[in-house]
Amino acid sequence: MKKINAVITGVGAYLPDYILTNEELSTMVDTSDEWIMTRVGIKERRILKGEGKGASDMGAEAVKELLKKTGTKPEEVDLLICTTVTPDHMFPGTSAIICDKVGIKNIQSFDMNAACSGFLFGLDTATKYVQSGSHKKVVVVSAEKMSSITDYTDRTTCVLFGDAATAIMLEPTEEEIGIQDTILRTNGIGRHHLVMKAGGSVKPASHESVDANEHTVYQEGQAVFKHAVSNMADVAVEIMDKNNLTSEDVKWLVPHQANLRIIDATARRMGVSKDQVMINIEKYGNTTSATIPLCLWEWEKDLKKGDNIVLAAFGAGFTWGAIYLKWGYDSK
Amino acid sequence: MKKINAVITGVGAYLPDYILTNEELSTMVDTSDEWIMTRVGIKERRILKGEGKGASDMGAEAVKELLKKTGTKPEEVDLLICTTVTPDHMFPGTSAIICDKVGIKNIQSFDMNAACSGFLFGLDTATKYVQSGSHKKVVVVSAEKMSSITDYTDRTTCVLFGDAATAIMLEPTEEEIGIQDTILRTNGIGRHHLVMKAGGSVKPASHESVDANEHTVYQEGQAVFKHAVSNMADVAVEIMDKNNLTSEDVKWLVPHQANLRIIDATARRMGVSKDQVMINIEKYGNTTSATIPLCLWEWEKDLKKGDNIVLAAFGAGFTWGAIYLKWGYDSK
Repeated sequence: MKKINAVITGVGAYLPDYILTNEELSTMVDTSDEWIMTRVGIKERRILKGEGKGASDMGAEAVKELLKKTGTKPEEVDLLICTTVTPDHMFPGTSAIICDKVGIKNIQSFDMNAACSGFLFGLDTATKYVQSGSHKKVVVVSAEKMSSITDYTDRTTCVLFGDAATAIMLEPTEEEIGIQDTILRTNGIGRHHLVMKAGGSVKPASHESVDANEHTVYQEGQAVFKHAVSNMADVAVEIMDKNNLTSEDVKWLVPHQANLRIIDATARRMGVSKDQVMINIEKYGNTTSATIPLCLWEWEKDLKKGDNIVLAAFGAGFTWGAIYLKWGYDSK
Repeated sequence: MKKINAVITGVGAYLPDYILTNEELSTMVDTSDEWIMTRVGIKERRILKGEGKGASDMGAEAVKELLKKTGTKPEEVDLLICTTVTPDHMFPGTSAIICDKVGIKNIQSFDMNAACSGFLFGLDTATKYVQSGSHKKVVVVSAEKMSSITDYTDRTTCVLFGDAATAIMLEPTEEEIGIQDTILRTNGIGRHHLVMKAGGSVKPASHESVDANEHTVYQEGQAVFKHAVSNMADVAVEIMDKNNLTSEDVKWLVPHQANLRIIDATARRMGVSKDQVMINIEKYGNTTSATIPLCLWEWEKDLKKGDNIVLAAFGAGFTWGAIYLKWGYDSK
């Protein structure tokens, strides 16, 4: 029995049309383009407008693009995993809703939540399914309507987040390409530093929680930054060492896009140069679990089969990790 | 390379002390013990009391019992999956919080949501990790504080749900025991019939959504019942046929505990007698993803190594499925 590898065979994405610029934010809170660019490196972010629209509306569009690009019929998909911190509802799963919206029926699907590291965790789980031989076409959708949980009166957080959805296809191969190694970690010490305080079982929604703006992102910036900068760089270097990769061997670093300074620190520690790092934070902000596949989508045309790529992320929990993969195809 | 099987090696649970009886419910809404018993077969359910308590508080206790029963140190666990529709928060993951509360550090952990079928989906994912050889001690925690999303003015739903948490340990074995086969399905047509309308990205919490009680379970009972009764029975029979199991071969059916009539219909279709079916709905109600492991926990002393067991569930999404397993150990 030959070893089955799991390889990404396509990437889709959906970006809402509306662009929220630093200029517009400056009219809403006490901030400026210069302040935002210096501290986090974001110029604009996309916002999903429209009553009753949720993460699934973007996720469904990303999946449709993916199916079209890869020439896949909805009925060929046999597992769909949705990573999100902004599900349409607490239940049913946003995965089930996306399946319904794109015409996928009666397959296995579920939601996963590992916050900003969600794509790495989802990709690892998808890899296990493909490598086991039980599933042949696995879609990982990362759909985040961060505007639904952003407090636009808090200038420290409202500049950070954007809306987006992505979808990748993972398939089996006997070639030596695809997911090579994974390191994923969680440490619950972070649970007070980055949290949505209300709306869960600890503090269900009430008039008080709505008045206190507790259904939005609460972040203690300095504590999160400190852990992010060391953990993300450490784990990226660890996966390089574990796989005997030098900085020359690494073609691309694809970091979670939360803060330009965290990205720079990770690249520096890995010894990779700026032109080996995918960065689009200035255009989309932090789209939580969608940032890494959004980079892969945007850089897809530059990727070559066999390229060594390191993905690295850090998020609420804390959760963090790195995945080392060999890219699966040349752009068509 | 020998095939690695994944086997359940222990079960823990936590039940809150407070018992909400049909008698007490009769003082809150227009209902009666006779009405509830006839229609759903529930006499009482447990409720987690105490300000600021969430699903993780019960989940942590269930994990502690599991670790104690299996003689496992926190640092030996290498993956923890939490299934829940009532997470402490939208983020961080309840899995991360449980890890922190029981002293598990720096392992992989994430939340999964497949509603009432969550345990089956979580067990299948855990099985993939164990079978891949990458993880040796995987904990699946199912923690549900349903009282946090129950509308105690709605007599059609408030009688149904209870709070509980469970935890199972899954480990590799080369013996022919453990998880044998799995069928899991989703169909998003169910998304309007069983839903928590507000609190997600489609309808964030607001004064209007709080006033409209939209942060609680909304269920169209007849539509859900119709789908549940046919899908759960169908999939249970399908997994028997697929594995050439007769009703004599099946030692136990462990059904999701939502409604006694759905359980009876499934048992009848499988041809198994009442004494082969684990039923504790009368004591705990519907504890969502915790019902099936709560049965395994309660019947653990009666289980023998090699017993053929069929698990079957149905829930919001819709999600549903069945798992066929051979029990791994005689009770100590």
